[in-house]
Amino acid sequence: MSYSDFEDEVKTLTNLEEASKFLNWDEEVMMPENGVMPRSRQKSTLSKVRHEKLTSDNLGEIIDSIDENELDEDQKANMRELKREREKMLKVPGKLIEKISQKESECVDVWKKAREEDDFESFAEELRELVELKREYAAALNEGEEPYKVLYKDYEPYLSFERMEKILQKLKEELNPLIDEIQESNPDLCTDAFKGSFEEDKEMRFNKEIAQELGFPDEKGRLDFSAHPFTVGNSYDTRITTRTKDNDITGSLMPTIHEAGHALYNLGVPEKFYGTPRGQPRELSIHESQSRLWENHVGRSKAFSKYLLPKLEEKFPEEFSDTSVEDCYESLNQVYDDNLIRVEADELTYHMHIIIRFEIGRKLINGDIEVEELPEIWDQKMEKYLGITPETDSEGVMQDIHWAWGSFGYFSTYTLGSVISAQLYEKIEEDIEKPENKIENGNFEPILNWLRENIHKKGRLLKTEELVEEATGQKPTAEPFLEYIEEKYSELYNL
Amino acid sequence: MSYSDFEDEVKTLTNLEEASKFLNWDEEVMMPENGVMPRSRQKSTLSKVRHEKLTSDNLGEIIDSIDENELDEDQKANMRELKREREKMLKVPGKLIEKISQKESECVDVWKKAREEDDFESFAEELRELVELKREYAAALNEGEEPYKVLYKDYEPYLSFERMEKILQKLKEELNPLIDEIQESNPDLCTDAFKGSFEEDKEMRFNKEIAQELGFPDEKGRLDFSAHPFTVGNSYDTRITTRTKDNDITGSLMPTIHEAGHALYNLGVPEKFYGTPRGQPRELSIHESQSRLWENHVGRSKAFSKYLLPKLEEKFPEEFSDTSVEDCYESLNQVYDDNLIRVEADELTYHMHIIIRFEIGRKLINGDIEVEELPEIWDQKMEKYLGITPETDSEGVMQDIHWAWGSFGYFSTYTLGSVISAQLYEKIEEDIEKPENKIENGNFEPILNWLRENIHKKGRLLKTEELVEEATGQKPTAEPFLEYIEEKYSELYNL
Repeated sequence: MSYSDFEDEVKTLTNLEEASKFLNWDEEVMMPENGVMPRSRQKSTLSKVRHEKLTSDNLGEIIDSIDENELDEDQKANMRELKREREKMLKVPGKLIEKISQKESECVDVWKKAREEDDFESFAEELRELVELKREYAAALNEGEEPYKVLYKDYEPYLSFERMEKILQKLKEELNPLIDEIQESNPDLCTDAFKGSFEEDKEMRFNKEIAQELGFPDEKGRLDFSAHPFTVGNSYDTRITTRTKDNDITGSLMPTIHEAGHALYNLGVPEKFYGTPRGQPRELSIHESQSRLWENHVGRSKAFSKYLLPKLEEKFPEEFSDTSVEDCYESLNQVYDDNLIRVEADELTYHMHIIIRFEIGRKLINGDIEVEELPEIWDQKMEKYLGITPETDSEGVMQDIHWAWGSFGYFSTYTLGSVISAQLYEKIEEDIEKPENKIENGNFEPILNWLRENIHKKGRLLKTEELVEEATGQKPTAEPFLEYIEEKYSELYNL
Repeated sequence: MSYSDFEDEVKTLTNLEEASKFLNWDEEVMMPENGVMPRSRQKSTLSKVRHEKLTSDNLGEIIDSIDENELDEDQKANMRELKREREKMLKVPGKLIEKISQKESECVDVWKKAREEDDFESFAEELRELVELKREYAAALNEGEEPYKVLYKDYEPYLSFERMEKILQKLKEELNPLIDEIQESNPDLCTDAFKGSFEEDKEMRFNKEIAQELGFPDEKGRLDFSAHPFTVGNSYDTRITTRTKDNDITGSLMPTIHEAGHALYNLGVPEKFYGTPRGQPRELSIHESQSRLWENHVGRSKAFSKYLLPKLEEKFPEEFSDTSVEDCYESLNQVYDDNLIRVEADELTYHMHIIIRFEIGRKLINGDIEVEELPEIWDQKMEKYLGITPETDSEGVMQDIHWAWGSFGYFSTYTLGSVISAQLYEKIEEDIEKPENKIENGNFEPILNWLRENIHKKGRLLKTEELVEEATGQKPTAEPFLEYIEEKYSELYNL
């Protein structure tokens, strides 16, 4: 047996996972409503078969037969990533994984209904069982460790919990007073530059045009509508979705730019490594840094408004003939200080929403609080950090699908994404002369090339912290993000 | 171990196959062009895993542990179908299957290019190797049997080769003089009732409306455009495609009706058997009888023209204000006696195209002729049976993808489909009072219900010949088709 046997096995695992991912895309975007049952069976078989193969003795023997000293760096990365996943799965009983996956899908179903009916009680019942199972899962993986840390590591194996915690702490300290200042300021920002009436077909064509100009090519992807924007794919074929929001073209356009950022990352990993971890993008925080770099540092910059407005005027003359670049920029960057909903938050208050979820989720998983206490604690923290209190649990503790999905430890990766994107963009501003001039002219290639070179091409060659350090000279750190935020909002709100 | 273990294994096999089928739909309809390589890897892994599981010792032990006397009829059908497939696969070396599948996809690639460039030589080279492999495959399955018969049985395990041959022979004898008569007649049939200019979106909406009225519901399916019309799906979720043909709305509409016929069959198999052979439609000839019943016996009837024309007038007033029902009926049923292409043939000459392929394919697989002789023999038979000779191999022996795909023994199932559809429709005319009145009023439910009851609901409970016999009182036979054809064309051409 040799390394190439190992790679064959790894590729089989990838193919099963990819098959499942594209079936999932189909489910969200194309599938007729009656297809849910057979589709969930198909996906569950794929996941069962993949688990069998990942934990098989055969794969174990192949791994044992390989002398890692004889491998090159790419091959070593493949071994590292695969062994980590395999060792994790060997620790968790297959039955427990099945139980969790079943409970998660039940919990999501109940959550959907409970959120509609503002019925926390019925959600709580399911969630309690799921939390119990997730605690069991954490104990199976690492008995002595803090359970929440174990779950976090599932999502971010190579960005330490301590570093993440320090970053959140720093943001909490610095963003809180800034939010207070903004709430006390008396600005008169334009909020409706992008409002208007847009025909769906035309809106979609406009979104496609912008995505293409950012570097998302037709022959390697698709853009469709779906209920929740998302990205699925690989170096060859990556698909994004956006949504329509009545009467505001940024309702589709900002998700398109965000998802295009994810897609450009997928498409930028070298094709020749396809099927192995080396040929996959790194996980959540880095992936999110790509989407947020394009959405926020590019898409919400004044330069981008200068680029965008003439295009909008050309395609929708009736809606944009009276709009100024300043209007666009202000509308894209206003702080919604009375907003209760994470996914509708601005770049600033967003992270307070995350910190609330991090603090509550941690206590819950670690057993310091129980499910029934969630609504009260939620409302207290909302009041304390954002000065607002939700009137219902639907727009409070039940607003996100993540906990129903069993994704505890996940939320902080969103903030890490913002933080890393600012760190990368700071370096881009050093390496590329006046990137804002390029953006204004619709020349996004220098930025894309920088990301290709410093992030995309690396796939999973480096661990997360190393990857950021090689690209920027520093491990993930909050400062560039805080500087960016303070500069932007001080100017906007005359602080 | 028990029957329920057996069913679990069978369902796993189904899920793998279904996953692959929907990925294939995606590939044909949605996938960006660059996605071919990873998609073919995904599908090949699914097929490899399915083969492993189908031929596993584990499944063998489960099968051996079951006492078939204790099973009900549905369960017995599942055992029969699964054992047949497993025993077949156990006889063929896995390596040979892999080689065939690889050669098939190479051969299709070469065929595409060769057909474009009318270059039979380069196609012949690949085809020769594929034919050799298919002969090997037939020998592995059944050493002493005529190889072509073995391959046919792969497609139609339960409709005997002898019966099929007798049917083709009968058609050849009776259709030949009829074609001569028509060629000598001097008719003045309308040929352009459906010509016009149709906007693609509107054309698609019209197709969807008709498919829905036939009984193809939105929540259980989709209709899209693709290069070649096809159907994929199960009782819950079945998708059809059609194509556009410039300036003739039947270019999309007839394929839609045909594929809707396939879809109604899939959707009519009881959901409760999903995942087992009992919950699958029977194979090609029966499936094709469903599509052809709707396309020909319903869609090309005078009653259907009466139903269709007012709808066309309403949606496309400029194109149809001067059209008569008679024009529609004639245009849908004209005999193209100088047509070289199978897929563009009418209901009559079509079967001569099939007979040519059957006779040549049989000789080729059995080693009575070799690949290099194909063009000459093809042209001779075209001249003899249809009185026309292709000028190029592209519109001659290379027109169909089937042989490049390795589908030898397949073509006759199309004719069987026509023959069985006529047999079923003859019975429908006995059981339903004046079905043409129902069609004229757009009331397709009585016909659909008859098919549901007599064909769809049965899934794979019965073998093919039994299924036809239970539905019509006779095993598959040519007479009803010949009567239908003679009646229709005698009237149209005043013979």
